[in-house]
Amino acid sequence: MFHTEQEFVRWLQGLTSKKSSRLKLGIGDDAALVAAGRHRDIILTTDLSIEGVHFTRRLHPARSVGHRALARSLSDIAAMGGVPRYALLSVALPRTATRAWVEEFFKGLFRLARRFHVEVIGGDTAVVARAGLMDVTVVGEVPSGKALRRSGARPGDQIFVSGRLGRSALGLQTLKSRARSKGRTARSAGEERELAAAARAHLYPEPRCDLGSFLRRTHLISALMDISDGLSTDLTRLCQASGVGAEIRAEQVPGPGGCKPAKSLALALHGGEDYELLFTVPARKAAQLPGRFRGLPLRRIGEIKRSRDLILIRGDGARAPLAAAGYDHFSK
Amino acid sequence: MFHTEQEFVRWLQGLTSKKSSRLKLGIGDDAALVAAGRHRDIILTTDLSIEGVHFTRRLHPARSVGHRALARSLSDIAAMGGVPRYALLSVALPRTATRAWVEEFFKGLFRLARRFHVEVIGGDTAVVARAGLMDVTVVGEVPSGKALRRSGARPGDQIFVSGRLGRSALGLQTLKSRARSKGRTARSAGEERELAAAARAHLYPEPRCDLGSFLRRTHLISALMDISDGLSTDLTRLCQASGVGAEIRAEQVPGPGGCKPAKSLALALHGGEDYELLFTVPARKAAQLPGRFRGLPLRRIGEIKRSRDLILIRGDGARAPLAAAGYDHFSK
Repeated sequence: MFHTEQEFVRWLQGLTSKKSSRLKLGIGDDAALVAAGRHRDIILTTDLSIEGVHFTRRLHPARSVGHRALARSLSDIAAMGGVPRYALLSVALPRTATRAWVEEFFKGLFRLARRFHVEVIGGDTAVVARAGLMDVTVVGEVPSGKALRRSGARPGDQIFVSGRLGRSALGLQTLKSRARSKGRTARSAGEERELAAAARAHLYPEPRCDLGSFLRRTHLISALMDISDGLSTDLTRLCQASGVGAEIRAEQVPGPGGCKPAKSLALALHGGEDYELLFTVPARKAAQLPGRFRGLPLRRIGEIKRSRDLILIRGDGARAPLAAAGYDHFSK
Repeated sequence: MFHTEQEFVRWLQGLTSKKSSRLKLGIGDDAALVAAGRHRDIILTTDLSIEGVHFTRRLHPARSVGHRALARSLSDIAAMGGVPRYALLSVALPRTATRAWVEEFFKGLFRLARRFHVEVIGGDTAVVARAGLMDVTVVGEVPSGKALRRSGARPGDQIFVSGRLGRSALGLQTLKSRARSKGRTARSAGEERELAAAARAHLYPEPRCDLGSFLRRTHLISALMDISDGLSTDLTRLCQASGVGAEIRAEQVPGPGGCKPAKSLALALHGGEDYELLFTVPARKAAQLPGRFRGLPLRRIGEIKRSRDLILIRGDGARAPLAAAGYDHFSK
């Protein structure tokens, strides 16, 4: 078997034939990009949600499973500055799922689809003995040639993230400890609120499609992607695609709160499934970027460097290599 | 749980929101159809292939699993008279699959993709503990407004099928009996050849994309779909979509050969996964249809009727209702 997802993707890239004139971006970015007429490019992305890998029926309500299955693909469209339009939905329903579970699953998915004006236009269904599974394909669009990519970061560019990172990972921990009935540790009301918010962020993540479109229209952005597998892993991907390195300032990385600072930082650096956006802005334009978009903070966390290393700078100025320690679908 | 796939699809159709002006066809046909610019419509389809449901690693070589996973979606494009262009591939690999298995799987898929000039432009991957699974999305295109649908059949139209039906089902039986080492029954060389051809037809079905495009360009066709779940089931769907019925002549239905006539007829009526095309032609135009397309027979098997029943007429003139007894993904 392949050892990492990256090894597998590289092998796949080697197998694929020459790119046609209309294919602008293939395997390796957040989504594929195809020219469709003179004015528009089409963005195509597909994401698996597998019971036991991406969700469990014990921890995740059916409505959350449906929401998350679509949110992953919507986030890939956001990651290129596109607007989602259509979805195709393949579902392998576990034989043991009740009709109520199935209905709630679809309600969660369709509610999110309606909010983003996405039409579910087709799909496939099957019934399986054990683990259920969904694969959601989303078709988005973007003005011709305007899609943002992860490969455009240049030395000196400032690195930004939206929102807060590590909340989904903290939320999953919270849900797990509640399920084990160990959630009764004495905590302040503030901590409890943070944990409840983290659980909601895990169950119902918000794809940043509006922010992605906004960032595209600012013409300030040199590289964009979403953070689905953790900042350390996804920043590594952005840097590799751009042929650069980065320095991140620990105290500027916005962690989840509701836990100790060291844990908060670890979750923010390596926790996945936040679906916030990670982007870079050339230094001379960085001041033009607003600090918030519709209330959502856009925070500077570091700078792109020519040297290809990823460095974490702590509050005391200590520098240490930052290893990609987020989610890899092949090793975990 | 839902009792049939049809019940489930109707419930889903009820959930989907109003259709936008650019969506021409949503859930319920072979594929979805979306306007893309003035000259082209885009066809979108997605199909699951699940270990234990659609294939087994015991009976199906890895190369066949890859071939079949893509062939199902290509056939949906053929079923609308479209030309396939791009594919997205989601794969949940079983942890027990060897690297050789994975490589053979992709070789089977990419070989078929190359033959149809289809580019694999993205996808998703995961590793699962048990049953492997693939979901293949194919993007096709068709001149604006020219896609063929299953809903256009009118009373008096003549019903045609391409190739021979029931070969895939016979091929699967052959593979199963070989795997049980019961394949040693005394048979003529001719029968053995038929069974070997049936096994090949099951393992490496040929999507009829070129035929579908050809039929579209003839301007003779009133309704078109592919036969994926068996003639009785798919003809029922075509008739329901068109608001008509049909009479089929048993002796004109092209069965697989290599077995007794009664079995051959049953396989041809109800066996799935042949991926031949089923289409109707207004009676006054039927003579213009060639008897073959690149060597592939196009055979008249019956006629569309106003009464909504499906009737099978036997060689002796006896008439009996033809029940949809093909594959339903919910009841089997």
